[in-house]
Amino acid sequence: MKIDITLKRMIDDSYPIHIGGLPPIEFPGKVAILTNPKVAGLHLPKLLGSLKAKEVYIITIPDGEQYKTLQTIEFILDRMFDHRLNRKSSLIAFGGGVIGDMGGFASSLYNRGIDFIQIPTTLLSQVDASVGGKTGVNNRFGKNLIGAFHQPRAVYIDPTFLSTLPEREFGAGVAEIVKMAVTFNRSFFEWLEANDLREGENLEIAIKQAVETKARVVEEDEKEQGLRAALNYGHTFGHVIENETAYATYLHGESVAIGMVMANDLASQIGLMHVDEAERVKAVLGKYNLPLFYDIPDVEKFYQAFFLDKKSADSAITFILPHGIGDVEITDTVSPETVKEVLGRFQTKVLAV
Amino acid sequence: MKIDITLKRMIDDSYPIHIGGLPPIEFPGKVAILTNPKVAGLHLPKLLGSLKAKEVYIITIPDGEQYKTLQTIEFILDRMFDHRLNRKSSLIAFGGGVIGDMGGFASSLYNRGIDFIQIPTTLLSQVDASVGGKTGVNNRFGKNLIGAFHQPRAVYIDPTFLSTLPEREFGAGVAEIVKMAVTFNRSFFEWLEANDLREGENLEIAIKQAVETKARVVEEDEKEQGLRAALNYGHTFGHVIENETAYATYLHGESVAIGMVMANDLASQIGLMHVDEAERVKAVLGKYNLPLFYDIPDVEKFYQAFFLDKKSADSAITFILPHGIGDVEITDTVSPETVKEVLGRFQTKVLAV
Repeated sequence: MKIDITLKRMIDDSYPIHIGGLPPIEFPGKVAILTNPKVAGLHLPKLLGSLKAKEVYIITIPDGEQYKTLQTIEFILDRMFDHRLNRKSSLIAFGGGVIGDMGGFASSLYNRGIDFIQIPTTLLSQVDASVGGKTGVNNRFGKNLIGAFHQPRAVYIDPTFLSTLPEREFGAGVAEIVKMAVTFNRSFFEWLEANDLREGENLEIAIKQAVETKARVVEEDEKEQGLRAALNYGHTFGHVIENETAYATYLHGESVAIGMVMANDLASQIGLMHVDEAERVKAVLGKYNLPLFYDIPDVEKFYQAFFLDKKSADSAITFILPHGIGDVEITDTVSPETVKEVLGRFQTKVLAV
Repeated sequence: MKIDITLKRMIDDSYPIHIGGLPPIEFPGKVAILTNPKVAGLHLPKLLGSLKAKEVYIITIPDGEQYKTLQTIEFILDRMFDHRLNRKSSLIAFGGGVIGDMGGFASSLYNRGIDFIQIPTTLLSQVDASVGGKTGVNNRFGKNLIGAFHQPRAVYIDPTFLSTLPEREFGAGVAEIVKMAVTFNRSFFEWLEANDLREGENLEIAIKQAVETKARVVEEDEKEQGLRAALNYGHTFGHVIENETAYATYLHGESVAIGMVMANDLASQIGLMHVDEAERVKAVLGKYNLPLFYDIPDVEKFYQAFFLDKKSADSAITFILPHGIGDVEITDTVSPETVKEVLGRFQTKVLAV
């Protein structure tokens, strides 16, 4: 005997992304703010001044990618239960990408899902991580391997939070902006070549352009069945670099910058991208002092680490490679030999023999 | 400036529930079977005989509700990564409710979601937990407080697995069958009064009837915005009992049986259910040696524990109370005094004074 259970329904997870000064935000129930001590010290008074809620709780976790673990999620959930949050409560993720990913993840798990709001305070999280509903944590096998899709109710991007951002973190954010341009928007890339994001209104213009690009991609392909995978350009390589360096050497955006250089080299090797265009991408990244080289200790080990990547199927590795600037190709047909040859160029020890 | 991100789409999570002898099941990719040593010893050869897959891995976790924790989820995920499962792999949850809830939860988190299959081996999980996509774990604050909605790809219910079930676990499963009848189906309840589930084909008939009832309720209300909450009849009380006794004294179905008796008493107290009908429910539960009484150590503490229940909003407790046999009412207007008066009747110490 067979009983069919029919679960077809319309889902509406649409939400607004506000760019500009933080407006007053009102909540009907309890609110918990997830943040870290650094962001709290610099910006919490401003946020609290904008909130109107029945009860507000602050949950603070240590700053840093190394705390993006399931253990920290359990700590956050425990505090949410301590504060007796319920299904009508909301969580505000107030900080960079780590806070956003973990706040979204914890709110997806609490009572099987409560509302959350993203208020990103770093350039990287403003242009990328805060939009799209990907949440999760790392483990010893790699980055973002455990998680959930959980869309925020709203995102508030206030560029004035960036005034306190250290230069390295600024550059790390620029890397993701460059990513959007190289994968989807050639004229935006040319604008980036001609303009300095540290001058005048340029940063806000670039944030809007990057968020707009990402929003359209996520609308097309929320669960990353196709198009959205293109946003992982530079990440396939970058994640391995971050993992090999225990998240201690590079900021996420910095490893993505190196990853894009590697992806471009591979794209050039198989004839998808002219070397001149690869050089132009390097030049833009270099303007913001981003690293462009990583000395791979063991090519074979680096290669094997790809297989833990979510994007890779049973036996083939999926690469996101630029097809010139402004277009992208997702391919799993590059031969292992070609990949290892390109990786070999990022190994000074071998070159020195 | 405001950018709107529009995420409206059709979701189809429909799946078949097969009731009867386990058929051959074929998988295109890798398969991991999550089970416990007891189920593995009794039934794994039969399951392995029915599977056809590229690679099969067995993940074993200890048997018991006390292991239904986030720590065990991390252990399961680590094994899944050890085995290099990918997005085309599947997890089979092979065991009782604990295995089903954790297998579903782990598969929802792995790479933000891979397929899973439910093959329940206890009566309780066959009639209830295996259908509906609620997954999750307990923590020190209560039951199933952390989790996700993740629908299985298919459910296989083979009643022959029940031949090895201890009598107490059989009774615990019957409690959930009685729950379906009292809340939604008066004629099914009358059939349960007239028939013994230990005889002939009666058990398979009851399983089909219970699964059919649950399937229709989940179709109506997957995310428990309304109707589905009715299936928590007996659980609001039962969860507190389980938590107070550290999951060590009663099986889940046994605490639900006591919870239904408590809910019926409250329903009688406010005039929703005639005491004769409450007695009839007791009589059916008693036929299967289910416990009908729990000695509450501290009424105030028991009452406060309701507020951690997912179904309760900021200040009001939501009760699921029978409106006679075969109908149900979800209400948050019962006064605290009335609730505590009814709870007081489950406290022998006070009665003895």
